[in-house]
Amino acid sequence: MPKTAALHLHLESASKRNPLFHLTEERWAAAAKRHRALARRLTVTIGWDGDILDAALKTADLMINSNPPRERLRERAPRLKWIQTTGAGIDALMPLDWLPAGITLTNNSGAHGAKAEDSCAMALLMLNAQMPRVLNAQREHLWRPAYTTPVSGKTVVVIGFGDLGLAAGRAAKKLGLKVIAVTRSGKAGRPADAVYPVSRLDQALPKADFVIVTTPLTPQTRGLLNRARLEKIKAGAGIVNIGRAPVIDYIALRALLEKGALSGAVLDVFEPEPLPPDSPLWNTPGLVVMPHISCDDPRYIDMLFDRWFENFGRHVAGRPLRNIVDRRLGY
Amino acid sequence: MPKTAALHLHLESASKRNPLFHLTEERWAAAAKRHRALARRLTVTIGWDGDILDAALKTADLMINSNPPRERLRERAPRLKWIQTTGAGIDALMPLDWLPAGITLTNNSGAHGAKAEDSCAMALLMLNAQMPRVLNAQREHLWRPAYTTPVSGKTVVVIGFGDLGLAAGRAAKKLGLKVIAVTRSGKAGRPADAVYPVSRLDQALPKADFVIVTTPLTPQTRGLLNRARLEKIKAGAGIVNIGRAPVIDYIALRALLEKGALSGAVLDVFEPEPLPPDSPLWNTPGLVVMPHISCDDPRYIDMLFDRWFENFGRHVAGRPLRNIVDRRLGY
Repeated sequence: MPKTAALHLHLESASKRNPLFHLTEERWAAAAKRHRALARRLTVTIGWDGDILDAALKTADLMINSNPPRERLRERAPRLKWIQTTGAGIDALMPLDWLPAGITLTNNSGAHGAKAEDSCAMALLMLNAQMPRVLNAQREHLWRPAYTTPVSGKTVVVIGFGDLGLAAGRAAKKLGLKVIAVTRSGKAGRPADAVYPVSRLDQALPKADFVIVTTPLTPQTRGLLNRARLEKIKAGAGIVNIGRAPVIDYIALRALLEKGALSGAVLDVFEPEPLPPDSPLWNTPGLVVMPHISCDDPRYIDMLFDRWFENFGRHVAGRPLRNIVDRRLGY
Repeated sequence: MPKTAALHLHLESASKRNPLFHLTEERWAAAAKRHRALARRLTVTIGWDGDILDAALKTADLMINSNPPRERLRERAPRLKWIQTTGAGIDALMPLDWLPAGITLTNNSGAHGAKAEDSCAMALLMLNAQMPRVLNAQREHLWRPAYTTPVSGKTVVVIGFGDLGLAAGRAAKKLGLKVIAVTRSGKAGRPADAVYPVSRLDQALPKADFVIVTTPLTPQTRGLLNRARLEKIKAGAGIVNIGRAPVIDYIALRALLEKGALSGAVLDVFEPEPLPPDSPLWNTPGLVVMPHISCDDPRYIDMLFDRWFENFGRHVAGRPLRNIVDRRLGY
C-alpha cells in the first residue's frame, strides 16, 4: 500500500498554438521516464481545448496550463493547489483576482536563458554592423557598404534584469560591452557593470549605444519607453525588444527609424501576435521583425517538464516552490 | 646634420575607391604625430589616380599603394625597396612576375581580426537562428516562427586558418562551438579543436553545422568548394564566406539554397564587386548579401599606418619585416 495517494496532475493544451508548446503524451512519457520516482506519485490526464477540462478539474491537485480557467475556479476545482503556466510572462492572466488564495501560480521563467543569450548577442552584432540597413539595401539590390568599429567597448542599457535581462547581460559581456542594468529596485548583480533604478531611466538612456528591453508587461512597464524617452537615446543607437511589445511605443519608434535617427531595431514581440500582414512594421526601414522566436528552444516543453518535476520534488518534500508569481508584481 | 638621408615614401590612392581606404594628408599627419621619431626619417608625397606617380617613382624608396604599377617597375622606380598594399588579399596582383627581385611586398593581413570576429559570430548566430529564412518571410509580411536549439555545442568547419580563420575560430569558441580548422599544412593551433589538411576536406565537411571560408584566393583555393563538395555538407547547415568569392561555386550554392537544402548563407565577397544589380544572388532565398564589410573598420587606414610604422621601425633597424607576401603561395 503506497504511503500517500497519488496526486492528480492535469495537462491542458490549445491545439491551435504552435506544436512546439503542446503538452503531448509522448513528451510527458519521456519526461516521466527521466523522473521515474516522482512520476509514480502522479495520475495524469491530458486535455486539449477544454475537451475534458471540467471533469479533470473536479479531482485535479496540480495543473500545467498556459491559459488556466478563470471563472469560479475554486468551485470547479476544489482540490487544486498549484498551477504551472508554460510561458514566463503572465501579463495575459493579470490581474490575478481570479486566483483563489489557496492556489499557487508558478511561471516558466528561467527556461529561456540560453536562447535569449544567443538572440541578444546576434541582435547586438547585427545592430552594430548596421545590418538592418544593409538588409534593406539588399531588398533593393543596392551595394551600400557601412563600415563600423567592433562592438567591444560599447555600452548596452538592459531594461529589466530577471532571467532574460541576465541572459542579455551575459551576451553583452561575452562581446566585451559595458552593461548598465535598469531595474525596479535599483539593484542588480553580475554581469551588470552599473545599475540604475527605473526612476533614473532617463539618466541611463543617453549612455546607450544599444538598449535591450527584457521586462515583463506590468502596469509599471507598459509604455515605459515612450516617445520622450526614445528621443533621449543617442543618434545611431540600436534597440532590441525581447520582453513585451507594449513596453515600447512602437509608433514613436517607427517614426525615429523612418527618419534614420537610430541604426535599427530588432523586435521579437508584437501586439497582437502574429503581427498582421498589413502592419507597417514589416517594412519599416531599419526594423528586423523576429516572429517571437528569440527565447524559445524546440526542446521547450521537455525543459518545462524537467523544471516542473524539480519543483514537484520540492512540493512533495514540503519545501517552497521556485518561480512563484508575485500576485502584486505580476511576475 | 642627420645621420642618414631621409627616405622617400610615396602614398598612392584611387579617388574612386571608398573614402574609407583613402591615404589622405589628414590621416598621414595624424599617424606621423603618433610616430614622430620615425616620421622624421621620411619625405612623403601623396598622389591620387597616378597624377604624380611617375615623378614620385623616380626617387621613391618606399610606397603604400593598393594597386602598384606593374609595367617596367624597376626601370621607373630604381630606388624602390618596399611596397605595402592596403588590403590583405593580393590575388588581384598575382602572378607576381612583375615584382622585381629587390622589392619586398607586404600586405595588411592582421588588420581585420576584431571586425572579422564580430562578423563571424553574427553570421553563426544568424544562421543558427534561421534568420535568412525569417528575413525572407519578413519581406513577404509572413509570420513564420522557426525554433532552433542554442548554437553552443555545434560544429563549425573553418577553411583557412590565417588571420581571418583565427578570428572565425575565436568567435566560434566564444559561442561554445567545436572548431575544425582546414589548412594547407594540416596544422593549426588554438582555438582549433581539430585540424584537417585540405586534402581531407571531404572528410571534414560532413561534420559541419556551419562552414566558414576565410582563405585567400590562390590557384589552390579557386573553386575549392565546388558542387560536389557543397553537396557533402549536411542538410540544414549554414555557409559563410569572408574570404574570396571564387573559392565557392556560387551557382551551385544558389541551387542548394533554392531547394532549401541549407539553412542559409552569409556572403561578404562577390565577383565582381560591387555585385551588379541584376545578379540573382540579391534575392536568392536564404542568402544574406553583405557588401564586403565584414572585416573592415572605419579606422582602417589609421590602423594600416600604425602597422606600417611598426614595420618601418624594423626596416630602419635592419630587422626582417612582418607580413611579407610569399611569392609562391600568393599570400
